[in-house]
Amino acid sequence: MENTFYSPKGFQVAGVACGLKTGGQKDLAVFLSQTPCQVAGVFTSNKVKAAPVVYDQQIVQSGKSVRAVVANAGNANACTGEAGMQHAQQMAAAGSQLFDGQADDVLVLSTGVIGVPLPVEKVTGGIESAAGQLSSANWLDAAHAIMTTDTEVKIASVQSPSGYTITGVAKGAGMISPNMATMLSVICTDAALTPEMLDKVPHVWAQSFNRIVVDGDMSTNDTVLLLANGAAGVEAGVESDFYDLLSEVSTQLAKAIVQDGEGATKLVTVTINHAATPQDADTIARAIATSPLCKTAFYGADPNWGRVVCAAGYAQAAFDSDKACLTLTDGAQEICLFSYGQAAEYDEPAAIALMETDAWELVLDLGLGDSDTWVWTCDLSHEYVTINGHYRT
Amino acid sequence: MENTFYSPKGFQVAGVACGLKTGGQKDLAVFLSQTPCQVAGVFTSNKVKAAPVVYDQQIVQSGKSVRAVVANAGNANACTGEAGMQHAQQMAAAGSQLFDGQADDVLVLSTGVIGVPLPVEKVTGGIESAAGQLSSANWLDAAHAIMTTDTEVKIASVQSPSGYTITGVAKGAGMISPNMATMLSVICTDAALTPEMLDKVPHVWAQSFNRIVVDGDMSTNDTVLLLANGAAGVEAGVESDFYDLLSEVSTQLAKAIVQDGEGATKLVTVTINHAATPQDADTIARAIATSPLCKTAFYGADPNWGRVVCAAGYAQAAFDSDKACLTLTDGAQEICLFSYGQAAEYDEPAAIALMETDAWELVLDLGLGDSDTWVWTCDLSHEYVTINGHYRT
Repeated sequence: MENTFYSPKGFQVAGVACGLKTGGQKDLAVFLSQTPCQVAGVFTSNKVKAAPVVYDQQIVQSGKSVRAVVANAGNANACTGEAGMQHAQQMAAAGSQLFDGQADDVLVLSTGVIGVPLPVEKVTGGIESAAGQLSSANWLDAAHAIMTTDTEVKIASVQSPSGYTITGVAKGAGMISPNMATMLSVICTDAALTPEMLDKVPHVWAQSFNRIVVDGDMSTNDTVLLLANGAAGVEAGVESDFYDLLSEVSTQLAKAIVQDGEGATKLVTVTINHAATPQDADTIARAIATSPLCKTAFYGADPNWGRVVCAAGYAQAAFDSDKACLTLTDGAQEICLFSYGQAAEYDEPAAIALMETDAWELVLDLGLGDSDTWVWTCDLSHEYVTINGHYRT
Repeated sequence: MENTFYSPKGFQVAGVACGLKTGGQKDLAVFLSQTPCQVAGVFTSNKVKAAPVVYDQQIVQSGKSVRAVVANAGNANACTGEAGMQHAQQMAAAGSQLFDGQADDVLVLSTGVIGVPLPVEKVTGGIESAAGQLSSANWLDAAHAIMTTDTEVKIASVQSPSGYTITGVAKGAGMISPNMATMLSVICTDAALTPEMLDKVPHVWAQSFNRIVVDGDMSTNDTVLLLANGAAGVEAGVESDFYDLLSEVSTQLAKAIVQDGEGATKLVTVTINHAATPQDADTIARAIATSPLCKTAFYGADPNWGRVVCAAGYAQAAFDSDKACLTLTDGAQEICLFSYGQAAEYDEPAAIALMETDAWELVLDLGLGDSDTWVWTCDLSHEYVTINGHYRT
């Protein structure tokens, strides 16, 4: 993705190496606002929540403002018991010393291996060394510092005509599923938001970060945060404009996560049209997007529509293959693979050629109702197995 | 698995090549009884059902007796419209000519690629040529003829002290999920069963064929059939003895399917103890058994218990990591990996060495109630991706 970005006013960021990753790679990011920020957040729905998730949820749900976010990669601080909660607190306290504040002015994020105690001295040492690096120019460093198995830095940025900026970073790669799997994202804006506008931010994320599938696993650490400090001196103005711009940033980041999914070679949009209910549309889209057989066929550029129809058939949702049509498209050409219970007549080499490209769409029309949806997913490759067979070694 | 078998009285079987598979491999099996058989069957719960499934379900549900089963590999006869139903009927009619019967005296099974019209002349030609091959000795040929991506023939056989025999064949490999995914099995016995005993046969399969997971996909064609012709001249006797023996045959076949799952290198038993409800136990067992992250860790012999706990946490079931313990065992040694919310102290090289063996068990004790269960699953390997990335080419 494009790595140009605008810096929202009043934010300074840094990305440094604190020794959690081997080889001196950056593994600690700080996002600091000169003034208190309104904050919106969504968190993993996994019943096993990492300590930083538990810590942040309390603060975000209280509605209080915050000044900073501190994030580390290389250790998830999940399944780490009482000590894990203390470490999250210590991380926040160290962050608050950057601006003479309190621990609850700081949110914390962690990502990496589960169940290993967080070497908290490394983290607090990293926060100290980040103090000298804080700058409005260091967004790429911050984005680098939260990467785990990501191969590309993820940053997205927009400016509104009225003069405010929204800039976000994210990390993803493994364990990405529609309900916020190991994904971290911090989005900062210098717009000022009303509390009502803040409340609706999760709806924007439901259409972006919650629409992505890498492997269907759902992590203990997923968190998306929006910090708004109002430093641009303009209200966000017409609500829909702000949501459109936030959606643009969020969608860019979410799609970047799928495109850079572990071992992914393709971005596939699975679109479901005319489902009986919104829930049915969602269930079928996700059954297809998580099916190992569909995902390996995507990898092999094999227009094996039988696997897609089969996945729709076992999803717990209304489906009648005699009313369904499946089309492959890249926006330019449309190739109908299956219609009304049977194979369509199609040009197999053309379908294969289309599936060999980087990004395309499967449209399954169910012919049952008026509910439509989509999810973004990727293929399942040899490289996914290589990465995950020996993650810790 | 052992390939010795006993032949139940009054059954003749054959496996021949009819040209559906390339290279002259066997692809058509016939199972013929000299006398009418009572029949029990379970079928895929996929809403997209192959023509042979629709055809067989009508007959099995009617309670009528049958004389034969004809099965082909190389083509699933699924998503083939009206023509598919006619082809299933023609297959059965051809089978009935082996004994001068009617089409509804014959059940049909198909497995292979979805959505390609069945070349029914090849199948009926194969049935004709099978006529000359029918023998009580040809069980291995029949077992070979139903294989698709299976690498080993699957046959299991037991004799009761009272003088009857139960012998079954199966095929599996891909798309195996707990709800009967592309799995075919035909089990024949010369015991005589009461109608009440026949009704309970699906309960035996719920503890064997429905406990296996390869990739979580659920096929359009799954079928397990039991044919009982009574030719041994003895009643099955004490019901529990018959169920025990049928369970032994079914379990051997089911485990053989997982061990020979596409690309599988390991058989992993996922045991859940002390769940709040039987449904919760099942949901958590299957979340772990289908998680790509868990399955790649199994492949890499990586005791990454965090992924297992994480999968339990996102399953839609009661789970509290602070009450849970996870143990790795091969029957001889037990290695506790996780207890009550945190990593246990364990010998990592010993855990890796245990996971490098062919078969082992994960026991997750939830500490919540009194419901226990298990499923058998396999690992997710590079070979799985290779097989499924280019299945049709």
